[in-house]
This record gives sequence, structure tokens and C-alpha cells, in this order.
Amino acid sequence: MQYGVIMAGGAGTRLWPLSRAEKPKQLLTVVRGKSLLQLSYERLRGLLPADRIYVCTGEAHRAAVLANLPELPPDNLLGEPTGRDTANAVGFPAAVLHKRDPEAVMAITTADHVIEPQEKFIAALKVAFAVAEQQPQSLVTFGIVPTHGHTGLGYVQRGEALKVSTESGAPGAYKVQAFKEKPDKQTADRYVESGRYYWNSGMFVWRCDTVLAELAQHLPASHAGLSKIAAAWDTPQRADVLNAVYPTLPKISIDYGLMEPAALGKGKATVAVVEMPVQWLDVGSWPALAETLRTDDQNNAMEGGAFVFVDSDDNIVVSEDPDHLISLIGVSDMIVVHAKDTTLVCPKDQSQRVKDMVAKVKEKFGDRYL
Amino acid sequence: MQYGVIMAGGAGTRLWPLSRAEKPKQLLTVVRGKSLLQLSYERLRGLLPADRIYVCTGEAHRAAVLANLPELPPDNLLGEPTGRDTANAVGFPAAVLHKRDPEAVMAITTADHVIEPQEKFIAALKVAFAVAEQQPQSLVTFGIVPTHGHTGLGYVQRGEALKVSTESGAPGAYKVQAFKEKPDKQTADRYVESGRYYWNSGMFVWRCDTVLAELAQHLPASHAGLSKIAAAWDTPQRADVLNAVYPTLPKISIDYGLMEPAALGKGKATVAVVEMPVQWLDVGSWPALAETLRTDDQNNAMEGGAFVFVDSDDNIVVSEDPDHLISLIGVSDMIVVHAKDTTLVCPKDQSQRVKDMVAKVKEKFGDRYL
Repeated sequence: MQYGVIMAGGAGTRLWPLSRAEKPKQLLTVVRGKSLLQLSYERLRGLLPADRIYVCTGEAHRAAVLANLPELPPDNLLGEPTGRDTANAVGFPAAVLHKRDPEAVMAITTADHVIEPQEKFIAALKVAFAVAEQQPQSLVTFGIVPTHGHTGLGYVQRGEALKVSTESGAPGAYKVQAFKEKPDKQTADRYVESGRYYWNSGMFVWRCDTVLAELAQHLPASHAGLSKIAAAWDTPQRADVLNAVYPTLPKISIDYGLMEPAALGKGKATVAVVEMPVQWLDVGSWPALAETLRTDDQNNAMEGGAFVFVDSDDNIVVSEDPDHLISLIGVSDMIVVHAKDTTLVCPKDQSQRVKDMVAKVKEKFGDRYL
Repeated sequence: MQYGVIMAGGAGTRLWPLSRAEKPKQLLTVVRGKSLLQLSYERLRGLLPADRIYVCTGEAHRAAVLANLPELPPDNLLGEPTGRDTANAVGFPAAVLHKRDPEAVMAITTADHVIEPQEKFIAALKVAFAVAEQQPQSLVTFGIVPTHGHTGLGYVQRGEALKVSTESGAPGAYKVQAFKEKPDKQTADRYVESGRYYWNSGMFVWRCDTVLAELAQHLPASHAGLSKIAAAWDTPQRADVLNAVYPTLPKISIDYGLMEPAALGKGKATVAVVEMPVQWLDVGSWPALAETLRTDDQNNAMEGGAFVFVDSDDNIVVSEDPDHLISLIGVSDMIVVHAKDTTLVCPKDQSQRVKDMVAKVKEKFGDRYL
């Protein structure tokens, strides 16, 4: 059976003061009244029934995630006692799903991006499932068709086309030639021009038994720990084993720990990439998030509160309180974010310094405003 | 007996969003943890006992004023049913005090300014009382010794010195030669150079019977109405008469309606000015208020909340919630004001446009945020 899993870990301090320790970026209501988690969930729901969608997140966020996704069966929330990087965040649901359904094929997606349109996401997802089902040794990644030479992303170089039977007849599935680290601008531009490189999406489809076999080979300690957890999962020992074992798993990313060695032919699996021609917006900073917001005639991007502007343009103005009035007079190119207990004001071109601010706030006030 | 009266009317939209319809400027806690009203009250308390200090304000603000001044006897609060400009705001307490004490001499002060040091205020007040007591036909105004050629203020030109016996022996009391409207810059500078002009403070001392006689001559309708109110004041008809009569009083300022004609010799009174060599800060705008606030090494003026600044200087940052964190990154010369339901961001050099913002907010949201 086909399953969908959303990885929803991480704090995202670059969207502070809205993103908080107890309310990470994925749970923020920021895009058309919905959270990134809700948008991710709805995307998967376009193909899969509710009982086959899982969320892997911090156990600390259980209540908030269940409140955000009222349709999610509580038993489909896999709560990490502590973050152990993405190799384990994908291996954990793979192990649990495999225990529950030895034929499970899983799609694992992120909740960091706005992805549109949904139809193209679904079409690529179907192709990836077809690859994983017809060529069971495949580890399938998604390649976002790049719009420009982005230097902040890894790239996937495609190789020969795969022969896959799909309902569309136009699979866009390829063998992966190589994964490429974040390039310099010149290299990035060359990648985009060539038409043979994609942005590495961090989303995957595979049979659970296939990815677990690869984990056993490349990351045996993770595989052993996750197997113990999966064996205890649907027993009364679930919490005890999870809490004892999970924190001991080696911290390593799925790219570095598994996909890259697999693409170098170091395991039994073959690595494939399915083209995903979508708009793929990282909303990991205020200016990036602003691209998803409604704007007025003066290009002020707004979300949340009530707004009155006098001679103000090109601002990003966000409140988590729909009744809070934010009023700007003669202000341009500024970010103004109002949270219940904190207000941030920062020029748009300095948004990368929000992380510095978070560090300074922590130094002065501890965790109080984080 | 000597009395002190504080006029505490007016909304002060230039300090919006902290100043509100139900919380006018005088009640804001903005200067070293105290409101302007409290500071005005303390100044008078330096000379007068609590039972001889009165406040004239909007009846709508009764509860807030009494909470602000716990020492004020409730019967010393004179509540205007509606604002009828300053001629009535000074005539009203004069009529009531005269009814209660036919020998009453009153000082009437404002709550719009920070005045320092208190000793010099008190010294001038004593001189003014001496003038009003020794020359009973006097209407005494206070002249602030000007520090620069301010074009936003009226001026008082002094004439010959008055012979008054005071404990200090150095009265600084003069006949008023003329009141002058707001001058242009060149004229204002000439006034200041001459040493014979003062800023018109809008504060006065006089015998109540003297000012009432002048009112009877120059503003007979006001005098008649206020006399009716005073006659009913300490009777069960107080509220009925007040509410029936006060709204019918002609709206006119004390300067235009009484002081200027009196200075032109059109009545029986003589008009005097007592020099008040104090720091006299109008806190009627955010930049003016900021001059009273504490500043950090980068000249950021702060009041109220918690603050963290990264590369930010010369800002004015105010919150009415002491626990609200305001964080600025790379921001200069900006006003950021956080009220419970509203945030204002505005460059310092555009602070005069806060009134425009208030008008626009009223247009869009009615009285909700006013």
C-alpha cells in the first residue's frame, strides 16, 4: 500500500518572532490562513486517504500538530523524543510502516515549502510511486525544475531516462547521475542552462523494505535502533523503547548518510529522480514568505492583522493577532512582525540577521521570547 | 485661601496609539513611570494641601483620573459633560470655588508639559499668588523664559515691573504689554533676543471673583451659565443643572475670549505676567516626549517594554506593556509604539503625520482603535 509521511521537525528561527520553540515554522498560519503543515497534508490528501498519512515531528509538538491537523489519526503521529537529523526522521516512519505493512511504499515530504500547483505535485508523486513499485530497488527523489541558478540549494544531475509505465505516459523519471553540493553562482547558472539538473527537494518515495535494507548497509547503528523501536511499536513497550533508543541514534542527514553513497553505487539500490515542475517557495525567511502573501497597490505584503498605511510601500507586515492594527507612516522596504509578546522591525534587506537577533534575545532573556 | 486647579481635558491624538479617547495624553504613564497628570498634581502639592487641589476634566474620564490620583478627593474633580474650550474649563472651577470660598485665589495649570525643576515652578507660583493677593484686580499669567525662537507658540510681551512684596524679594512680575500670536521664525528670534518676551504658558493665577467679573463682562453667556451651575453645585440638582447648561456654553478659548481683551484694557482687570524660568517640554508629539525618556548608548529612547536592538540607533521605542519585547535590527530614526491593540511605525521626521493616521484609522475602523 502507498503511504505519505510529512517530516515536520525544526524550529525555523528565521521566522521569529512568529516561529517559536513550541510553535515551529510548519505550524504557523501564514499562507492564506493555513499552516505549511496543513498545506503539506492537503497535498498528500489529494492522492492518499487520511489513514495512510503520517507525520513525523518532535513529540513535544504532538498536541499542536494534532490540533493543526484534526483529521490525522493520533496513532499516525510519530513523535521523536529528540531530533536526530533526517536519516532517522525518514528511517523511523519507514521502520514503523514496514512493521505494520511489509509491502508499504512511502512518500516522505517536507513542510518547509509552498508547492504549487497541487496537480503537478500529485502527478510527480504518482510517477514516483510507479517507479518504486515497478523497480522495487529504487530510491526515488524529486527534482524541482529550477527557475534560476540558486546557490543555496543542492542539485541533482539526471542520467538516462527510466522506462516506467504510468497513466500519463510521460514519466519524467531518470536515473540519478550525481548529487551536487551547493554550487557557486557560475556553476549554478551552468546547471540551469544545461537542463539536466534539478534542485534537490529533500522529498523521496521508496519501498520501506528497500530503504531499510540500505540503512542496514550504510547506517547500521540507525537501522538496528530503529528496528528495535519498530518491533516494540505496537506493544505496551513503545514509549520505553522509543525513549531509550531514539536519543542514541547517530545524527546524520539522509543525503549524506544514504542518498549520496547509494548514488555512487555503494549499495543494492538504484537512485532515481522524478521531475517535479512546480513553483517551490522556501518560506524560511520573511522576504521569502512574503512572496506567498497578498499585497496592496503599494506592494505591501500583509498577513494576519488589520492594516492602515500612509505613504508606505514595499513592506512586509504580519501579525498573529487578526485584530491587532499595524499602522505605518512613511515606511518603505521594512519588515514589521507583531507576535503576542514581541514586535520585530527590520529592513527587508537585513532579514538574514533575524537569527542574530534570536541569539541576542536568548542571551538577554533566556528562552522567554523564543 | 489658595487653590490649585489642573485642566486635564483634550485627547492628544499626536501621541496615538497610546493616547486614546478613553485614555487621554495626561493619563499616560510616559515619564519616569508617572503620568503627566500625576506630575502636574505633584507640582501643585509642593505648595498646596490635597484638599485644595482640583482637577477639571471630561466627566467620561472620572474613574481613570481618580485611579490616577488616589489622593484627590472625589468632590474635587469637576467633570465637564462635554468639552467647551478653555474659557469654560477655567470659568467652571472658578465659579465652583468662588461659591465654596468667596475669597478663593486659584492657580490654574495644564497637564500637557513636563516642567522642571519643581522649585522654580513653586517659586513662580508663590510670586503669582502674591500678585493676585496684593493687587486683587490682577489676571496673572506665567511666562516661560524661551530657549529658542519657537514658531509653534504664542508669546507674552512684558511691560513695566510690578511692585510686589514676596519672600524671595525678586518677583519677576510684570504688567503684560501684549499677547502675540504664533510668530514667523524671524520674529520669534527677535522676541527671544530682546529678552522681553515669554512663551505663553496657558497657566494662570487670579482671585475667583476677579476672573468671574471679567467673564461677566467679556463672555456674559458663559458667566451666566457657569453661575447657574455653581449655584446648584452643592445641592441635589448638581448633575441636572450641569448637564442641562454646560453643553450650551459658547465654545471659546480663555486667551481669545478673556486675556487678550483684558490686556487691551477693555475690562477692569490688569493683566500681569510672572516669569517662570523652567524647562518646559511639550510632550505633545513622540519626538518631544522622547526628550523626557531614558536613552541607551545609541541614543535609542525607550519607555515601557523590553528591548533588544541590533545595529539600531536614534529610535523612539515605547510599549504600554512592560513585558512586550520590541526588537529592532538595522533601524534608525524611527518611532515604534506598541499599544495593546495597535502598533505604529513612523520615521521621527514624520511624527506630525500621526494625526493624519488617526483620521485614516477613524475612516476605516470607526472608533475602534481611537
